[in-house]
Amino acid sequence: MADSHENAGKACIIIGAGDDTGSAIARAFATKGYTICVSRRPRHAEALDTLVSSIEAEGGKAVACPVDARDEEAMEALFAQIERDVGPIEVAVFNIGANVNFPVRETTGRVYRKVWEMAAFAGFLTGREAAKHMVPRGTGTILFTGATASVRGGKGYSAFAGAKFALRALAQAMARELGPEGIHVAHIIVDGAIDSNFIRQNVPDVDAKRAEDAILSPDAIAANYVMLHEQPRSAWTHELDLRPWKENW
Amino acid sequence: MADSHENAGKACIIIGAGDDTGSAIARAFATKGYTICVSRRPRHAEALDTLVSSIEAEGGKAVACPVDARDEEAMEALFAQIERDVGPIEVAVFNIGANVNFPVRETTGRVYRKVWEMAAFAGFLTGREAAKHMVPRGTGTILFTGATASVRGGKGYSAFAGAKFALRALAQAMARELGPEGIHVAHIIVDGAIDSNFIRQNVPDVDAKRAEDAILSPDAIAANYVMLHEQPRSAWTHELDLRPWKENW
Amino acid sequence: MADSHENAGKACIIIGAGDDTGSAIARAFATKGYTICVSRRPRHAEALDTLVSSIEAEGGKAVACPVDARDEEAMEALFAQIERDVGPIEVAVFNIGANVNFPVRETTGRVYRKVWEMAAFAGFLTGREAAKHMVPRGTGTILFTGATASVRGGKGYSAFAGAKFALRALAQAMARELGPEGIHVAHIIVDGAIDSNFIRQNVPDVDAKRAEDAILSPDAIAANYVMLHEQPRSAWTHELDLRPWKENW
Amino acid sequence: MADSHENAGKACIIIGAGDDTGSAIARAFATKGYTICVSRRPRHAEALDTLVSSIEAEGGKAVACPVDARDEEAMEALFAQIERDVGPIEVAVFNIGANVNFPVRETTGRVYRKVWEMAAFAGFLTGREAAKHMVPRGTGTILFTGATASVRGGKGYSAFAGAKFALRALAQAMARELGPEGIHVAHIIVDGAIDSNFIRQNVPDVDAKRAEDAILSPDAIAANYVMLHEQPRSAWTHELDLRPWKENW
Repeated sequence: MADSHENAGKACIIIGAGDDTGSAIARAFATKGYTICVSRRPRHAEALDTLVSSIEAEGGKAVACPVDARDEEAMEALFAQIERDVGPIEVAVFNIGANVNFPVRETTGRVYRKVWEMAAFAGFLTGREAAKHMVPRGTGTILFTGATASVRGGKGYSAFAGAKFALRALAQAMARELGPEGIHVAHIIVDGAIDSNFIRQNVPDVDAKRAEDAILSPDAIAANYVMLHEQPRSAWTHELDLRPWKENW
Repeated sequence: MADSHENAGKACIIIGAGDDTGSAIARAFATKGYTICVSRRPRHAEALDTLVSSIEAEGGKAVACPVDARDEEAMEALFAQIERDVGPIEVAVFNIGANVNFPVRETTGRVYRKVWEMAAFAGFLTGREAAKHMVPRGTGTILFTGATASVRGGKGYSAFAGAKFALRALAQAMARELGPEGIHVAHIIVDGAIDSNFIRQNVPDVDAKRAEDAILSPDAIAANYVMLHEQPRSAWTHELDLRPWKENW
Repeated sequence: MADSHENAGKACIIIGAGDDTGSAIARAFATKGYTICVSRRPRHAEALDTLVSSIEAEGGKAVACPVDARDEEAMEALFAQIERDVGPIEVAVFNIGANVNFPVRETTGRVYRKVWEMAAFAGFLTGREAAKHMVPRGTGTILFTGATASVRGGKGYSAFAGAKFALRALAQAMARELGPEGIHVAHIIVDGAIDSNFIRQNVPDVDAKRAEDAILSPDAIAANYVMLHEQPRSAWTHELDLRPWKENW
Repeated sequence: MADSHENAGKACIIIGAGDDTGSAIARAFATKGYTICVSRRPRHAEALDTLVSSIEAEGGKAVACPVDARDEEAMEALFAQIERDVGPIEVAVFNIGANVNFPVRETTGRVYRKVWEMAAFAGFLTGREAAKHMVPRGTGTILFTGATASVRGGKGYSAFAGAKFALRALAQAMARELGPEGIHVAHIIVDGAIDSNFIRQNVPDVDAKRAEDAILSPDAIAANYVMLHEQPRSAWTHELDLRPWKENW
């Protein structure tokens, strides 16, 4: 267990700090005293600045780190820079989604590859760079966001499930390899609709659903990421699922 | 989230409150203000009294409820009595193990049946009786302890894995059926050696292992049961695994 | 691969030789030259005689072996008697189903236990008795019929999924234990409606479905049991699924 | 079920027709009358010619189709050309492996990407192109070769398991999407050492193992591909595993 003082000067990096879940995870770790390095693609730099300001307004510390997470050199440079300028990376969260649904015959090679680059290759770079810095210290937590498509290849999901299955394989391999090195690697299967911008614009009865907790709250999701990080090493969870009580699964 | 005051007068029942994990779960929920109804077979009545005393010494409330958990009428009576005399059952934990390993050809029908009665049938009675009282109130948590054998039928485990697979099926069916009724059903896969009497007597280097957190701490396991109970209903976990950082899996 | 001559004098036992799948499996193995020992509960003795006659009319050999498959002594006696009077048991198939669906709160201990006795305990006795006779010879095949409920605990299936999960655990444990002894243990997940008496009486458009192969044909299912038995030991399958092409899964 | 005459003029394409399993699959389908279009990278063109000659020497029909299976345009052209010059593609097999094992920290982006391109992206192109031609006819079989790493992310397998998990996701999504279109999609998990050039050069006791069927025979593997193709559509298998009888799993 950690209090916010002992984490001062330590970094938590969120790759895929989007408006909903990613931001909630960032805010949740900020309350623990970490300096949160929030990252999205450069074209979302403005949203990152807004997130940083809102974390700071709540008394937390945050830094905007725009990057193309599929760019190996840029990722190596980013992690090195954070270690140098912010502090040791204690937590790394990979939260980029790329949810698309196309019939397989209409899925172009370009789409199939892009979905994999965003949701799997970028996850590999995140995990590997985090591991490079964490293993010599023998401590750290690496968390990967999964989805229903991480464990089920449904109709139209050849690209998305392909990428999410690959990310789950990465999490498994890394957990087995790095657990004995003191690194906690976990995979969170978010199985249901999230209370997000997308859902708020596309699901007609979203207010009714939110009122009865029938969609996933980003803050509730985020609490589990912090909980996983704080698990003592005698009892680590590698995988858990999250869904609203009313979800039909 | 709950504080200990709001849980005063509410009951938490632990079926299988053994010396190690079961006791740790009991103590963990006791700190939340519940009255803990700890249950084992009548021949362990003395151990139950000791557990009750130790919970009370720490300022908690507990009642010894010896019962043969395979006895349907006795279980119905016990749950009814707790509801009447202690308070509404808010948490029910099923934690009976029955770990045996025999080559299938040497497994008697008596053993196969007894392992199932202890590890699956008693779990069914626990889950059903808890559900009967919880569903009309639309709230409550039912937690089942799993093991490696819940997801893998290894050599010599035809009886034990049979019972643990059955318990996992129960947890899945109940979660799908009772989630929309407001009841949180979860299954915890404890995958590794636990720091228990048995291990302390049979594993030579147990002190060294404990010193480096290489065996599961009952208190660390127990913290996850409380965490699952406290998850807000917008993001419930159905299944998670627990193992020490050094475990080879 | 086997031809019918080399199997003359060898026995194949079907526990659960019901009107549809069980009978089809019996007929399929009969064409391979085995003497088929078809078994159901004594109250279905007449149906067994009809099945024996129909196999004999097609030039096969069969014996009616009514038994309560949950009765340990009766099962030991039956396997011993077949070995003595018919020939070495080369194939054992366990095909008893017990598909029921009840809300968990309305599931009695009696139902939960009976479903397990029929679908899991009887399977254990079948597998164990077969193993006892096969292992000393270093050859034989043991096949278990699974269902959707073998891998998914759906709503209302606490009893049935419990039994089918347990049977799958048995198949896994036996496969790992007995494979190196030369015994092929496999589990067949039949995932969809079967063209059976029950379906013919309860599904209104069954003729249309059969016309387009949209329900599982018992003969097509049975062909896979024979195929599994005939796999050379350098490449054994432990588990496969079967469903109609149109099935939504 | 098919005999060799009715398949005359129909094509079976093998992407990844390597020396061992791929060649065995090619020869097995050749005995069914298909014209086998065997494909590997252009630098293996000579090996392809040898395979074609050996199939022809056994009375079969085959065509060498060297291609870089990661090249979308080349794959589109190859499938179109076969449809035009050879006949309708009735069977498509994707059998490219890319088994590498590296600690995650030593896995370069180049390796991670290349393994995915060979073992997953090329599989996607194979499946999609086959589907494009098969769906309008409402018939055809698409088979994907899996491995232990398809279902388990072991130590050092972040790249390989990532690609194999992705391929399994593809097979699942395609099966659900294309089954109702009459296309049989299946995934074969080859779980053990194969009697291959690699094994023959690296495993010291390979002759002893082969003598007792303790390594997977390519011909035995191949028989299952043909079996899957010949399953009637009322009972299709989506996934099966294959391992030698002595394999420890």
